[in-house]
Amino acid sequence: MNKRPFKDYQARHFRYEASGDGRVATIRLNRPDRKNPLTFDSYAELRDLFRDLTHASDVRAVVLTGEGGNFCSGGDVFEIIEPLTKMAMPELLAFTRMTGDVVKAMRRCPQPVVAAVDGVCAGAGAILAMASDLRLATPAAKTAFLFTRVGLAGADMGACGILPRIIGQGRAAELLFTGRAMSAEEGQSWGFYNRLVAADSLEEEATALARSLADGPWFAHGMTKTMLNQEWAMGLEELIESEAQAQAICMATRDFQRAFEAFAAKAKPQFKGD
Amino acid sequence: MNKRPFKDYQARHFRYEASGDGRVATIRLNRPDRKNPLTFDSYAELRDLFRDLTHASDVRAVVLTGEGGNFCSGGDVFEIIEPLTKMAMPELLAFTRMTGDVVKAMRRCPQPVVAAVDGVCAGAGAILAMASDLRLATPAAKTAFLFTRVGLAGADMGACGILPRIIGQGRAAELLFTGRAMSAEEGQSWGFYNRLVAADSLEEEATALARSLADGPWFAHGMTKTMLNQEWAMGLEELIESEAQAQAICMATRDFQRAFEAFAAKAKPQFKGD
Amino acid sequence: MNKRPFKDYQARHFRYEASGDGRVATIRLNRPDRKNPLTFDSYAELRDLFRDLTHASDVRAVVLTGEGGNFCSGGDVFEIIEPLTKMAMPELLAFTRMTGDVVKAMRRCPQPVVAAVDGVCAGAGAILAMASDLRLATPAAKTAFLFTRVGLAGADMGACGILPRIIGQGRAAELLFTGRAMSAEEGQSWGFYNRLVAADSLEEEATALARSLADGPWFAHGMTKTMLNQEWAMGLEELIESEAQAQAICMATRDFQRAFEAFAAKAKPQFKGD
Repeated sequence: MNKRPFKDYQARHFRYEASGDGRVATIRLNRPDRKNPLTFDSYAELRDLFRDLTHASDVRAVVLTGEGGNFCSGGDVFEIIEPLTKMAMPELLAFTRMTGDVVKAMRRCPQPVVAAVDGVCAGAGAILAMASDLRLATPAAKTAFLFTRVGLAGADMGACGILPRIIGQGRAAELLFTGRAMSAEEGQSWGFYNRLVAADSLEEEATALARSLADGPWFAHGMTKTMLNQEWAMGLEELIESEAQAQAICMATRDFQRAFEAFAAKAKPQFKGD
Repeated sequence: MNKRPFKDYQARHFRYEASGDGRVATIRLNRPDRKNPLTFDSYAELRDLFRDLTHASDVRAVVLTGEGGNFCSGGDVFEIIEPLTKMAMPELLAFTRMTGDVVKAMRRCPQPVVAAVDGVCAGAGAILAMASDLRLATPAAKTAFLFTRVGLAGADMGACGILPRIIGQGRAAELLFTGRAMSAEEGQSWGFYNRLVAADSLEEEATALARSLADGPWFAHGMTKTMLNQEWAMGLEELIESEAQAQAICMATRDFQRAFEAFAAKAKPQFKGD
Repeated sequence: MNKRPFKDYQARHFRYEASGDGRVATIRLNRPDRKNPLTFDSYAELRDLFRDLTHASDVRAVVLTGEGGNFCSGGDVFEIIEPLTKMAMPELLAFTRMTGDVVKAMRRCPQPVVAAVDGVCAGAGAILAMASDLRLATPAAKTAFLFTRVGLAGADMGACGILPRIIGQGRAAELLFTGRAMSAEEGQSWGFYNRLVAADSLEEEATALARSLADGPWFAHGMTKTMLNQEWAMGLEELIESEAQAQAICMATRDFQRAFEAFAAKAKPQFKGD
């Protein structure tokens, strides 16, 4: 099922690093002098990479981070905003669909994505954090859904639908209408960030979290992620039936069998995804 | 598109005040001796006013507040509850639909609505706060979904659907089943109130917030509000596509063009809604 | 409408106790030496009991708790997990549907269910707490969605759909992917627990809460619960119309009439469910 091995993937518009066993991938936005802005090219490569990861059974968890003390400053004003002001509608829609496709691909791939956020996390950068599964941040993280500042709606890449489910409808409305920064402390208290950690241990902690998931039952984790997405707008009765089916699939795996046997033998289970 | 200018609108069952430029409207419930109860007439006028605001491009943000240290005590027991106990079903349904229509109209109008809450905020008053986009309160605000106290369900004007999205399903269930008051501190900690402010600066702060939105990209704000409503029960894939379309519309506006030019010139952008 | 009186119901796989007037039922998991695990039989009896309660107008609120300082340790590893590892798919699906049916029945019965949680609350035990309407806990409560530890998905009995609505999508994702325990303090701060109380007053407080609901407008409470379920995935406009209909039904009850008369007479209302 694997389209190609990801161990030696060479990214062009950011850095891609695989752990020794290839299970944990780190995507590092790396234009630190500009606080790691996104460009048309890096959007497209992120979309393609996360799409390809859907079929990459060697990669089991992803860390998403930025270089030089910032996460991501979002779409660059001169490299993205300016060209957009000159585009006709079909091009505009092609652009907003491409950025939306980054979020769709991040949600659709089975690997849990752990965002590791320090410093500036703004605009499309805030969206990348929002679209991740788990989020760690430093006390210096400033997370702002800035779209309103350039005359745009908060409705960008899914924010009006996704952010309220993470932090509640009222807080999301404030961030999206005003564009004000959410402090790291607010982010933790509101459930956006799962944990705050010191800047010098951010990457270590994010990688350890990703590693623990990668060494765990990754087929089942993929099902957890699928169902977190899939049940988004399902009725109560329907979502319970959906989980009955999803969990029955997991119970039919050898991973489940091995996990029981390891438990009975007081040993550590090995998960192989079969 | 504008049905009529709102600058000189004369409200009959509450006060309506427009800022000098007409952009910020303040709706002030004004029967302070009874803690600003609602009546059949004030419900109907609120519904009609918010419906008309949908087409009022001169009004760009709304402050909703009460006179005399209280927000709103809800439907008056003798002016509303007693007549209801004598009505036949079609009249009852006409009433519950009218009150529901107030919430529908508050959600449908493009203007962000900022509730400024002091003191009593009870029953339908709590609903008016809930149906607003942003909420400021004083430390003395007591917010209670009281319906259970008169033998009714918490299912009033959308509360069983909307309140859980603001404060979570478990806290909403407690407030709706028991009718107990949520303190101002709880309201802030749970995400119902965006901020607590001292009573003597409540209106000033609410007006400043409304003003900052009114002077911002109000066409885009209207789209943010539309999408916060529209994506309420959409699936993840569908809501991302919907935002791709919504944001492409905003990128095709002159407001967006002007915002970029102002940014490049380090000037303050002017938003005209075109 | 009542299938049978519940006052003298004799449970086989847990304890069932009715208050003197039968209005408050306490379901007590009672294998304290094993921290109250669930078995195939107790799942089935819980499902049947909650289903039958749907028609039990004498029972008006339910307390769900465990004996001996723990709530419930979930599906027993040797009594449930081991047999599951040997089952064919149709049997597996029959099992996951049966456990899902416990949650469906808990949500469908009109009685508010108050979980009283001390100590271990793990796996399917955490689900039983999650599926309740209100939740009290002691500071020693440890709540863990452990499925990942035996190689299964967090998608169990509705957790991927329900837990995010209670504590937010980001916190739910962490608990479901990692299986880590949520402390009592986190549980309260995140809105999972409505209140923390000392261990020696847990049952008293839970029973008092259930009692206050049982003596209140229980027909209307049933409608509140129905609508909290029913509006789960409805659009904003539709849920407001649904509540207009639901509340009109409540306004047509004699309970509503009596509640108004009691209010006018400064007396305590009697609710009869008619």
